[in-house]
Amino acid sequence: MNDASNLWKVTTNRFVNEKEAIMRNGNIYQISNGYMGYRGTLDEFRSEELVGITLAGIFDKVGDAWREPVNAPNGGYTEIYVDGEEVSALKTAIKTHRQTLYLKNAKFERKTTFTVKGKEVTINSERFLSIDKPNLLVIKYSFSCSADTEIIIRTGIDFNIWDLNGPHLTEVNSTVSRDVLVVDAKTHEAGIPLAVAEAIDMNFGAEKHINEKNRILREINLKAEAGKTYSFNKYSAVFKGQDTPDNNVKKAADDLVNEAKNAGYDECLKAHNIKWQKRWELCDVIIDGDKEAQLALRYSIFQLLIVAPVKGSSNSIPARALSGQVYKGAIFWDTEMFMFPFFVHTYPEVAIELLRYRINTLDGARRKAQSEGPGYRGAFYAWESQETGDEACTYFNIGDPITKRNLRTHFRDRQVHISGDVAIAQWEYFKMTGDDSLLLEGGAEVILECARFYYSYAYFKKNKNRYEVLDVVGPDEYHENVHNNAFTNMVVKVTFEVAIATVYYLKSKYPDELKKLIDKIKISDEIDGFREASDLIYLPEPDPETGVIEQFDAYYKLEDVSREELKKRIIHPDEYMGAGQGIAVQTQIIKQADVIMMMNIFKNRFSREIKKANWEYYEPRTEHGSSLSACAYAMVAADIGKTDYAYNYFLKTAKLDIEAKYKVYVGTIFMGGSHPAANGGAWMTAVFGFAGLSADAEKVTINPNMYKKWKSLTFNLIYKGDSYSLTVTGKNVVVRAMKSNRAGRLFSVNGKTIECQPGQELNFKY
Amino acid sequence: MNDASNLWKVTTNRFVNEKEAIMRNGNIYQISNGYMGYRGTLDEFRSEELVGITLAGIFDKVGDAWREPVNAPNGGYTEIYVDGEEVSALKTAIKTHRQTLYLKNAKFERKTTFTVKGKEVTINSERFLSIDKPNLLVIKYSFSCSADTEIIIRTGIDFNIWDLNGPHLTEVNSTVSRDVLVVDAKTHEAGIPLAVAEAIDMNFGAEKHINEKNRILREINLKAEAGKTYSFNKYSAVFKGQDTPDNNVKKAADDLVNEAKNAGYDECLKAHNIKWQKRWELCDVIIDGDKEAQLALRYSIFQLLIVAPVKGSSNSIPARALSGQVYKGAIFWDTEMFMFPFFVHTYPEVAIELLRYRINTLDGARRKAQSEGPGYRGAFYAWESQETGDEACTYFNIGDPITKRNLRTHFRDRQVHISGDVAIAQWEYFKMTGDDSLLLEGGAEVILECARFYYSYAYFKKNKNRYEVLDVVGPDEYHENVHNNAFTNMVVKVTFEVAIATVYYLKSKYPDELKKLIDKIKISDEIDGFREASDLIYLPEPDPETGVIEQFDAYYKLEDVSREELKKRIIHPDEYMGAGQGIAVQTQIIKQADVIMMMNIFKNRFSREIKKANWEYYEPRTEHGSSLSACAYAMVAADIGKTDYAYNYFLKTAKLDIEAKYKVYVGTIFMGGSHPAANGGAWMTAVFGFAGLSADAEKVTINPNMYKKWKSLTFNLIYKGDSYSLTVTGKNVVVRAMKSNRAGRLFSVNGKTIECQPGQELNFKY
Repeated sequence: MNDASNLWKVTTNRFVNEKEAIMRNGNIYQISNGYMGYRGTLDEFRSEELVGITLAGIFDKVGDAWREPVNAPNGGYTEIYVDGEEVSALKTAIKTHRQTLYLKNAKFERKTTFTVKGKEVTINSERFLSIDKPNLLVIKYSFSCSADTEIIIRTGIDFNIWDLNGPHLTEVNSTVSRDVLVVDAKTHEAGIPLAVAEAIDMNFGAEKHINEKNRILREINLKAEAGKTYSFNKYSAVFKGQDTPDNNVKKAADDLVNEAKNAGYDECLKAHNIKWQKRWELCDVIIDGDKEAQLALRYSIFQLLIVAPVKGSSNSIPARALSGQVYKGAIFWDTEMFMFPFFVHTYPEVAIELLRYRINTLDGARRKAQSEGPGYRGAFYAWESQETGDEACTYFNIGDPITKRNLRTHFRDRQVHISGDVAIAQWEYFKMTGDDSLLLEGGAEVILECARFYYSYAYFKKNKNRYEVLDVVGPDEYHENVHNNAFTNMVVKVTFEVAIATVYYLKSKYPDELKKLIDKIKISDEIDGFREASDLIYLPEPDPETGVIEQFDAYYKLEDVSREELKKRIIHPDEYMGAGQGIAVQTQIIKQADVIMMMNIFKNRFSREIKKANWEYYEPRTEHGSSLSACAYAMVAADIGKTDYAYNYFLKTAKLDIEAKYKVYVGTIFMGGSHPAANGGAWMTAVFGFAGLSADAEKVTINPNMYKKWKSLTFNLIYKGDSYSLTVTGKNVVVRAMKSNRAGRLFSVNGKTIECQPGQELNFKY
Repeated sequence: MNDASNLWKVTTNRFVNEKEAIMRNGNIYQISNGYMGYRGTLDEFRSEELVGITLAGIFDKVGDAWREPVNAPNGGYTEIYVDGEEVSALKTAIKTHRQTLYLKNAKFERKTTFTVKGKEVTINSERFLSIDKPNLLVIKYSFSCSADTEIIIRTGIDFNIWDLNGPHLTEVNSTVSRDVLVVDAKTHEAGIPLAVAEAIDMNFGAEKHINEKNRILREINLKAEAGKTYSFNKYSAVFKGQDTPDNNVKKAADDLVNEAKNAGYDECLKAHNIKWQKRWELCDVIIDGDKEAQLALRYSIFQLLIVAPVKGSSNSIPARALSGQVYKGAIFWDTEMFMFPFFVHTYPEVAIELLRYRINTLDGARRKAQSEGPGYRGAFYAWESQETGDEACTYFNIGDPITKRNLRTHFRDRQVHISGDVAIAQWEYFKMTGDDSLLLEGGAEVILECARFYYSYAYFKKNKNRYEVLDVVGPDEYHENVHNNAFTNMVVKVTFEVAIATVYYLKSKYPDELKKLIDKIKISDEIDGFREASDLIYLPEPDPETGVIEQFDAYYKLEDVSREELKKRIIHPDEYMGAGQGIAVQTQIIKQADVIMMMNIFKNRFSREIKKANWEYYEPRTEHGSSLSACAYAMVAADIGKTDYAYNYFLKTAKLDIEAKYKVYVGTIFMGGSHPAANGGAWMTAVFGFAGLSADAEKVTINPNMYKKWKSLTFNLIYKGDSYSLTVTGKNVVVRAMKSNRAGRLFSVNGKTIECQPGQELNFKY
């Protein structure tokens, strides 16, 4: 049974007291609710163990250090003393330990039995971040002893915060008022108020309050009886300025913990579980016949669901989700190209938040175009985008461990495909959902401004009568400042196409809105240019002999060395292979899928033969130095019938975070944390790759490339606002339309196209 | 008196027995005759002391090592034994030592008195490379002892050759025939035959022949009488395959040494001296009132004259002249931009050879355009050009002493200004001499093919209605892959202008030749494009506030750090500051004059105010990591009236080789050797800078910027084939036309323009 409980949880029965293991488990066992993430650390851990409560959408910068998200004080802190001796997994002998992450509802649980002075002491705690009340953390903490014992519990708020580039909080105050502990502070840069409140629900012991330098605690003394289990519940709330109309974050936090305490643990959990159940109904994918793949895929989907932005927040999803401050909490192209497809196919209300985030940060993209110039117009989206859309990526983005110098990279100023990635996603949402409201709300403006940026960026080559896109970085970041990167040129072309389609659509349906928009951004003279450029832009052609598309001008002239040979040249384990003089720069070894990524995103523009030729050429030359790479190779491998390869790459992407074996240093920069783009890639490989689903404005096409060991693959699809359940086997495709669907939609399997009416079940053989 | 003998020689009275000093003296005291260079080493020195006889126009490549000029076996070798003990500056106690380089006739002399076993032994030798017979080396060797002594002289040919990337000679044979020693061999790559013969003229002692592994020697024993001076003469000839119609290099060398021996030392020297006298009559510059400057300038002129290519050879001048194999013996833009002006103004028959070299290597430039592509057309001249014009510059041109890796530089593929430098010089010769024969001989074809290359390289920016030149390296090599480098864009524009002027001139005067040329290279459709591009090419404008021209797009965005601050970041003394991640790359510190070089070459296109603003901006930001830099700053400083600065930079460039204190390692690459471009810069600073001479097709303009300590500056000029002597003082300019001149020419001083008739003397006050 695939829904057997062990396919709905991640668990370990040992505790390894090493910094590295604690860091990796902090990632694997993290919980999150879109508002904040809480790393998978134990109750008694502190900043040295990378306890982190990372908040979405609030950033801060200290001095010249990198701007990054703010971590909140830890209202989940509890320590315990047995007969005067502190009990901690870091210090005390452990008899048994188990920690578990429940995927059904994002609940973390730990149970540890310690041996202290000949007695056994068991701590059992569980916690969840409410998706019903996103500001709320709820914890149940229990303990029992094998003999009568003097117990001291110290529980409260720890504000000695783990930060990569902090401290971000100043004017920190801790107070106790009507039995609620409150820590409030302001951020360093913008003075945004932040408050964490904590209330407990305990029916034993005598409590006093202790105000330490970095903690505010309740101290409870009791004589615990042998064998008896003592439990209490903790409710902690985090509020930041923008969460409350009056900035009164202390009051909001205080109110919420009181409200939660009044409701009680079980009620809070129930409201949380109901919402989680709905999420899984929408988003689960069931693989029949492969437990390893099932768990890895479900964990990947789980990772995406826990960081789905809170409704109405207009937040997006950072590249390391809410697992910490790595990558500055920034939003990359990862979101549009690797996560957005999952949401738009299964959970469009989350997709809307992701798109709104880009609409709301359009001015930041305009500012970037202005400042990166000269002569850039329109919207050049940030490579690393925070709350305003201004660029967070530094020009010197990677440290060189050999010279200790910071290396200039051109991710920020030359990875121009980002604007097209954003624009294409805006249009994709409309195509998939039929919902044009976002176009009117700003999506059309985003699209036109991105096209305008490309028009200002591209050059015309008169003697070849074509536009070219020069001096860029493609997805393969080992090769900077290249000309006519095939991927980028295609993104630019499609952006022009999308811009023209947008104008055409608005003209026919909303002519007044179009006129207003054109007047507002004064773009009427430029649209003919977009049309010409979309026709005349140069797309590198497959070689007539080999079928291979050259990744960029003169790529073939680079040294054709194997990955193994290249790695022999490494002189420092953390050295970066790109950036000017890295060892891959002058070779054909690429960081990640680039031409193959193009063939994945724009799969209908290339024949199977061309995809095969390119997969076979580039695959051995890819170093997979990015977690985005594996899924592109997986999907194209499935597409060309290399399902064994597809499966291996699928497992690589799907198991990335559940195993957490990834490299955590690039150059001198710490990069640990979760990989939602790879998780999105796992879902895409299952649904787009093996199930072979591809939907456009006209129809849903399913051309399966099933993996031989899988009996079936079952998943849901929301298309044009209607819901479908699909099951794909090695022989047939079953499409079930919900009764509540509003209209029939076309489904096509292996060239056979049928309209699937509401409530209808279609069974295609193939 | 400026022609006092100590202003015509370089001399030292000490011998420093250290590798570094021997290497530097080898450069300072080198002699050359355009056919070959002979480093300033002592008779008894061998390859360890960098004895080098470097040949012009013959190159060889061994394995994967760099292709470089061939060094010939040393027919000047002599060692001496006193009472059985070898006498050598490297081993024997030296009582006195003097070595002298005579500038009047490029003669090297050494006189050393050794103390050996209580006796004093004096060796006195002198040598010259004949400019009457360029294959010939002539030596007079004398010795005397303070007491009767058993002497053994071993003299002959040493073929243990110093090579940077050798050995280049294979199949080495040494023979003795009719009292002539001959070593013959072939080059490794192309099998070009090479022979060195040696004859001596000696009237004492008994001779036998010794054939060692790497030497063929005569051994002469004698009992030398106390106080008596013994002398003999050595004649050595070098011939390479292309010097003889039948490849019989052995016979040619044998014949020449016999001929020379028959004529005798004095006759050989006399013929040599007569030609040298003529050279100095044409080329000397006399500074009255500044001995230091006089000697340094004369030494600089001397350096240019010794490497003037042999008439009819179509050789050019390598960047390190014939001082060794450094820089692969290659010809750079140095020749056209820094040496050609000297020759075209004083000694046009040498200028012709330099231009013919480029005409003869046009096919190599075409091949480079083809192979560097994609889509390049026309002539992309080699950044480092050898005998065929194919590119000798490697993509990995500099070694990194920190990582021991070779650094990718873009000198080869992006320093595109080289083609324009070549084209402009072809036109400049015509403008200065009025001689259009070289245009017809191939110069026009060179110019059109260079313009064609630029047209294929440039891009059009539609929304700005302009051409741009992207992804180049300007003279400032610390900043690679830049866009719209002001210098390069100007060179490209002028190249288009010159191409159009060439077409216009040929059309009016040689319409049939023009038609033939256009048909031959099929360029008729492209000439309108050149015209449009010359109008619409983007030239970065001076900032309206500051007057400064930005060196390239976004240069101002780079870190504005001082040279001193930057140097504190150095972690290895030999690390290169450019190439991808060098410490200057992301700063405004530049390697050498770039914008200022543009204002120097194209001086009439910029106002004095703009030059001043740019000089003041860029001078403190220039690291002078190239020997080409100082003279550009000197000339523009003179032009804007900063004559003290001009003087300091003048001395820097003029004293570079006479002091030989330059850095000899860049990265891991040995760079020692002479700097003919800097020497050309010294002449240009005197004549163009301080005398303020600038000649164009219409007239000669003289706007002096005299240095306050100089009483006068006297020099010759050949203009439109006529000869003039000019004297500039702080107050007036005297122009004397030779009686033999064919026509009157316009001279303009301070706005006053007068035609100077044959035989006339004009005296302009200013």
